[in-house]
Amino acid sequence: MKDLRSPLTDVQNSPDDRNISIDRVGVRKIKYPIRVLDRASGVQHTIGDFTLTVNLPHHFKGTHMSRFLEALNEHKSEVSVDGLSSLLKSLKDRLSAESAHLEVRFPFFMTKKAPVTGKEGMMEYACGFVAESNGAEDFEILVEVPVTTLCPCSKEISEAGAHNQRGYVSVRVRTREFVWIEEIVELIESCASCDLYPVLKRPDEKYVTEKAYATPRFVEDMVREVALAFDRDGRFSTYEIEVENHESIHAHNAYAYLRRGF
Amino acid sequence: MKDLRSPLTDVQNSPDDRNISIDRVGVRKIKYPIRVLDRASGVQHTIGDFTLTVNLPHHFKGTHMSRFLEALNEHKSEVSVDGLSSLLKSLKDRLSAESAHLEVRFPFFMTKKAPVTGKEGMMEYACGFVAESNGAEDFEILVEVPVTTLCPCSKEISEAGAHNQRGYVSVRVRTREFVWIEEIVELIESCASCDLYPVLKRPDEKYVTEKAYATPRFVEDMVREVALAFDRDGRFSTYEIEVENHESIHAHNAYAYLRRGF
Amino acid sequence: MKDLRSPLTDVQNSPDDRNISIDRVGVRKIKYPIRVLDRASGVQHTIGDFTLTVNLPHHFKGTHMSRFLEALNEHKSEVSVDGLSSLLKSLKDRLSAESAHLEVRFPFFMTKKAPVTGKEGMMEYACGFVAESNGAEDFEILVEVPVTTLCPCSKEISEAGAHNQRGYVSVRVRTREFVWIEEIVELIESCASCDLYPVLKRPDEKYVTEKAYATPRFVEDMVREVALAFDRDGRFSTYEIEVENHESIHAHNAYAYLRRGF
Amino acid sequence: MKDLRSPLTDVQNSPDDRNISIDRVGVRKIKYPIRVLDRASGVQHTIGDFTLTVNLPHHFKGTHMSRFLEALNEHKSEVSVDGLSSLLKSLKDRLSAESAHLEVRFPFFMTKKAPVTGKEGMMEYACGFVAESNGAEDFEILVEVPVTTLCPCSKEISEAGAHNQRGYVSVRVRTREFVWIEEIVELIESCASCDLYPVLKRPDEKYVTEKAYATPRFVEDMVREVALAFDRDGRFSTYEIEVENHESIHAHNAYAYLRRGF
Repeated sequence: MKDLRSPLTDVQNSPDDRNISIDRVGVRKIKYPIRVLDRASGVQHTIGDFTLTVNLPHHFKGTHMSRFLEALNEHKSEVSVDGLSSLLKSLKDRLSAESAHLEVRFPFFMTKKAPVTGKEGMMEYACGFVAESNGAEDFEILVEVPVTTLCPCSKEISEAGAHNQRGYVSVRVRTREFVWIEEIVELIESCASCDLYPVLKRPDEKYVTEKAYATPRFVEDMVREVALAFDRDGRFSTYEIEVENHESIHAHNAYAYLRRGF
Repeated sequence: MKDLRSPLTDVQNSPDDRNISIDRVGVRKIKYPIRVLDRASGVQHTIGDFTLTVNLPHHFKGTHMSRFLEALNEHKSEVSVDGLSSLLKSLKDRLSAESAHLEVRFPFFMTKKAPVTGKEGMMEYACGFVAESNGAEDFEILVEVPVTTLCPCSKEISEAGAHNQRGYVSVRVRTREFVWIEEIVELIESCASCDLYPVLKRPDEKYVTEKAYATPRFVEDMVREVALAFDRDGRFSTYEIEVENHESIHAHNAYAYLRRGF
Repeated sequence: MKDLRSPLTDVQNSPDDRNISIDRVGVRKIKYPIRVLDRASGVQHTIGDFTLTVNLPHHFKGTHMSRFLEALNEHKSEVSVDGLSSLLKSLKDRLSAESAHLEVRFPFFMTKKAPVTGKEGMMEYACGFVAESNGAEDFEILVEVPVTTLCPCSKEISEAGAHNQRGYVSVRVRTREFVWIEEIVELIESCASCDLYPVLKRPDEKYVTEKAYATPRFVEDMVREVALAFDRDGRFSTYEIEVENHESIHAHNAYAYLRRGF
Repeated sequence: MKDLRSPLTDVQNSPDDRNISIDRVGVRKIKYPIRVLDRASGVQHTIGDFTLTVNLPHHFKGTHMSRFLEALNEHKSEVSVDGLSSLLKSLKDRLSAESAHLEVRFPFFMTKKAPVTGKEGMMEYACGFVAESNGAEDFEILVEVPVTTLCPCSKEISEAGAHNQRGYVSVRVRTREFVWIEEIVELIESCASCDLYPVLKRPDEKYVTEKAYATPRFVEDMVREVALAFDRDGRFSTYEIEVENHESIHAHNAYAYLRRGF
């Protein structure tokens, strides 16, 4: 039988002579029930997918993975700018680290009414936060919005109809002041050929078909329109905008990407 | 130190008294370069993702996983009805099994010309084979074809335009005689509002837009049209047809499923 | 301008002369916040991913997709045997269908204590329900449980250590009476080399390492042990059990599958 | 009927007054059969998944998506440093762009012999190239290698056994001179607790089990060992190293990330 020292050796805490510091070490793909702020009802229940890391100085062999889970378990109650700032502080304290970094992705739901009949349903948007504490604090918001895009070229050159498709607009922003996720969603939807709806009755379907036909948009138009809308709003200090069209006439996607403020 | 018997014990071969036979046991997610038959050039290089299993009688503790890889390594040269039949036989022999089952998925490429300008490119189709040897032999072909679908209702009720989108038609068929994958692809494409192309210049884009507008198809129409085409062809003994439209006006998908011959 | 009939034509309702009935038609990939029964706290908030379908008789051209969303919006409040039965009835009524079918997948969370220190965290399990109303009603529960499996052969033949890995046990069951999801999870975890934990401190890690080493399991053992446990329990009328080991010594997976009661 | 100008209007080429240049615009998710250099046999057939983009000056409304496909179709024959450089040049020429960027991901296969018996099979590695032409040229290689990692802490504190699992090492490197993908794979595999094999007979399984037990590695050890190996090799000018362990004792992953030379 192996000779076991008592108490159990802290292998992670043992010295390391390879002289290599590690930028980020921690845990990934942790699913946790969370609550996020919701303009309509104060807060909504959803599910977060977390990556939590800290830096590791060169003289330590390893980090203590269980402490990330303990910190998360303590600070999970509300995932907001303030809540995530506390979580980052807790990670730095528990792990004696100088920097901490986290990313959390979650589905976010909004009730949406059909444009003519007003029939209601829920729309899901893939959202997230990226937060870092490293001397200064940094906080980014991620929002993905599916939209309709109708091709300007196809409309222009064809006798009738125009190809259109589902496109995905993904943004990553820093803001100068508080911005609701709902505001970012609505800003993006206002730039599309048409926005999507959970429930559409015939009068609604007529409306969205005709609106899209009247409002053609390339992926190039989409990134530019969203950039203009961010600029007009004035609260966004940096932004990245990515649009990917699942082209209805091709098996591949059309793509555009733009960033400002870096 | 542990007392090690010599030669190494065959744990898998030891008796099992739980009296439970196992329907399928084997290996999954094995990627292998393969060659499949190609109507245009005889054979094409692609990459297979294999699941290989056999039955396990109740009196054995385990199967011998390494033998699946040895069999695959020996029979990988050509993945066809005959080649897969030999592989199944080899699995049964090496593993003393009564039945063997395999599934292989692979991307299949076809050169496709634009409908007006004739500009060429390659289209990829997600294909596969499912084969079983269990007394009799069974062989199924899987083909997925992305297409354009244009909504008949949207066209009918709107002053201009009609929502359309990329849809995916997936079929699983048994045949009475040899059928090329290419024939199944073409049969499915002929049922859509329009088929997809890798390269489309402006005259081509005008063509596909107008063709789709002239040929509206619900998911319900798609499964019915493909079923009719299979019936007319006469070589298909059983078929399952599944269509999933990535609706351009919704964040969710429209879906239809139909099976015959079972 | 197109001549538009008034009121808007119901294209879906128009007759179809192709004489082909469709097994299932409806909507897929609808994400919705739901609540499911929870043994510890009565109910838990989670997020469902729904497929909803009905049959379509041969004489109708199409189904009415928006009605699926309306039905879901009305019956989403509690996803349970009773709640889903009402949803199926609502689908049949609204769509004048003889059969309705649904599948919903959702992450399910359980609080779990470390085996020695008792430190708490949340574990996520991928679960689901499949329900059908077609004359009789049918209801199936899906549960996926990640576990540790340690290889009996590797342990037997090696001087020290034994390869082990994360494996995934997926079951699909029908029950004769009410069974908690939590009971199915615990039953499966009891069959593994060791179960997984969100938080493990050093004494816990020593415990799980030694427990797994003392309890080797092939994928073949796993499906058999779970089958025995289902049989002993007595409440399960049919079951399918699938185990997939993400082998630590291979890039591919080991796999076993067993079904009973069909 | 719409009044159609002749010839077909080039909408993309029309002026744009929003004054917003776009960083990258192009096409994504294009699957194409490709050939890559192979140390053992000169060249291997595989399948590329391409993203191709160029910059778009502020005064143009859109890019010409079909030209990306035409360029790819012409330069697909061999995907290497030289071949991709030509493709980038072709994209810039055809699209009158100042910069072009591409990313291609492909499975790469190597024959691998079992460590004791020498039994052969194929291993798949997820690889890729990122290339840019923007004044200067830039070229990066992406390689992902699955390995065995055995936990040093678990081994140290436990009487017998140690938890181990499949881990994934992903690197992204720039090199000062030509380096084979195979060399990067072997360098990474030499840093692990043990490397993975397609075929392992019992004497091989004994070998890999004992080797892993004798060579414990945290994710922190893995990124450091790979960094040391890159430094010793001397041909790598920049590198990013990411390791993600699919922990066998948790449902979440352990993670470490390190970059140098930026």
